[in-house]
Amino acid sequence: MQVLILGAAGMVGRKLTERLVQDRHLGGREITHLVLHDVVEPERPEAPFAVDTLTSDFSMPGQAERLVAGRPDAIFHLAAIVSGEAESDLEKGYRINLDGTRFLFDAIRHAGGGYRPRLVFTSSIAVFGAPFPEAIGDEFFLTPLTSYGTQKAIGELLLADYSRRGFFDGIGIRLPTICVRPGKPNKAASGFFSGIIREPLNGQEAILPVPVDVRHSHASPRSAVNFLIHAATLDLSQVGPRRSLTMPSVSVTVAEQIDALRRIAGDRCVARIRQEIDPTIVRFVEGWPRRFDARRAEELGFQAEKSFDEIISVYIEDELGGNLPDR
Amino acid sequence: MQVLILGAAGMVGRKLTERLVQDRHLGGREITHLVLHDVVEPERPEAPFAVDTLTSDFSMPGQAERLVAGRPDAIFHLAAIVSGEAESDLEKGYRINLDGTRFLFDAIRHAGGGYRPRLVFTSSIAVFGAPFPEAIGDEFFLTPLTSYGTQKAIGELLLADYSRRGFFDGIGIRLPTICVRPGKPNKAASGFFSGIIREPLNGQEAILPVPVDVRHSHASPRSAVNFLIHAATLDLSQVGPRRSLTMPSVSVTVAEQIDALRRIAGDRCVARIRQEIDPTIVRFVEGWPRRFDARRAEELGFQAEKSFDEIISVYIEDELGGNLPDR
Repeated sequence: MQVLILGAAGMVGRKLTERLVQDRHLGGREITHLVLHDVVEPERPEAPFAVDTLTSDFSMPGQAERLVAGRPDAIFHLAAIVSGEAESDLEKGYRINLDGTRFLFDAIRHAGGGYRPRLVFTSSIAVFGAPFPEAIGDEFFLTPLTSYGTQKAIGELLLADYSRRGFFDGIGIRLPTICVRPGKPNKAASGFFSGIIREPLNGQEAILPVPVDVRHSHASPRSAVNFLIHAATLDLSQVGPRRSLTMPSVSVTVAEQIDALRRIAGDRCVARIRQEIDPTIVRFVEGWPRRFDARRAEELGFQAEKSFDEIISVYIEDELGGNLPDR
Repeated sequence: MQVLILGAAGMVGRKLTERLVQDRHLGGREITHLVLHDVVEPERPEAPFAVDTLTSDFSMPGQAERLVAGRPDAIFHLAAIVSGEAESDLEKGYRINLDGTRFLFDAIRHAGGGYRPRLVFTSSIAVFGAPFPEAIGDEFFLTPLTSYGTQKAIGELLLADYSRRGFFDGIGIRLPTICVRPGKPNKAASGFFSGIIREPLNGQEAILPVPVDVRHSHASPRSAVNFLIHAATLDLSQVGPRRSLTMPSVSVTVAEQIDALRRIAGDRCVARIRQEIDPTIVRFVEGWPRRFDARRAEELGFQAEKSFDEIISVYIEDELGGNLPDR
């Protein structure tokens, strides 16, 4: 089978690529060809099957057609302008996140000849906007408070309509905040959720810009890849017309995150976290969901970690070679 | 003030035009100029202010800019490809209902110079898709089961995002089934809800294609116009970022509709209804909402009729000159 990943150069795209190379199969079918696409050249892995890389802006006329010309059996659509940039550059956000997605969907629709791939669309909990109930259930309405969230919510609607019409077999998965993100700190307002774990584990100081009673929901990068694989292989006849699902996650306060870090890596490690309240980030975070009741996804077999301890352990296993720093 | 109506040649557009001509004011401001737009030439009323008619397809490049060139203070966006046609002609539905709406919104955004009109967008209960709770509340999610409903839901999302960014002051109103529609029977699957009242009152036979225990929600054409006027004049600072509202309606079974007709027009009139079950229509109707709990709209002062008797009386007053047929 042929697999296409859009947004392959991003963190989740790279981890998904690694996993497919390792598995060699997707849903019991052998992968014969992997196409990695992004706006920058994705890294080409050593693989037991053919790998092509493609670099283009798929919101430009004709580019989406090129992507589906090889009729990939499974398409992972991870490509997006992220939240901050979609907010500061309205035109670019709508062009990539809305028009690009629609061009892709229409290119599949126009391919003809009974072509009907599995399409996994990564949505986001940014489709939700405060005020929220204590836990957001599967039937809560989407009221995004950013252009990014708006574009993801529109993508979900298009995905459902095009799936209903039979152009592809689509499923949307709303990723929670991915934690612990590997690599350098980024400028995302949510970056500290990873930073307060990652930096101390790497012997560095981390800034905590919010009070410790802030509650949020997380899943590891490994879980994100598991979600994607499960979405690509799940029997969608069970899913019906409501095609986008909130993924499971671990809901914890920052204090509970820190307690988990202490249990795993000790007081010396925790002492590297320095609280320095940033009113801007505090205000952002107030608008974010705290907890989800992701019953549908759980019933369909999607699984995240069960505790924040487990999330930290995944980081140590996958990014630090299993080695704990000095206690 | 200048007022623009898109979709002015439709039933609701014509009634809104009549009302504005009669009122001469909108929200305490004198109307000086009314622009009526549709894809077919709208009828030009006798009016105490300037009236222009415009005929174009506003989904064609440059047309939306023409519409807002005169900087209307209030815009009623009623234009749409209806449900059946949006389903049978996917390209046309997305072009008019999605691209057209977006072109209009972007034309307003690009007008510049602090231009920020009130924009009333007519959405529809087609944004909801079965299964439903017994009554659909204000926080129930949108899972349309038609392309029309998908396009309206996308319009709501764009409306909220563009309002949040301050490009216009938008409000979306989800109209219930409008009953009793004047004029000839149309081919809409929901047409019988009006037909079983209208035809008997006009001395003609009507076909009832569903069982009498079917429940649905209605408001009169007069209420639809009241909703639009209220939406155009309401203080939107009370509304916040959740800009689309389910309108109030009267939830009744078909049996209750017929009882109301009997109370108002007698047994001879009711005898003109002939039941002839149409399995296709029965199946459609099973997917439609039965009842809404439109609390937010009610709290904001939107009002529909209180009973189906009242809905029939409005038809008799507005369409039959107050004259009941022979009992």
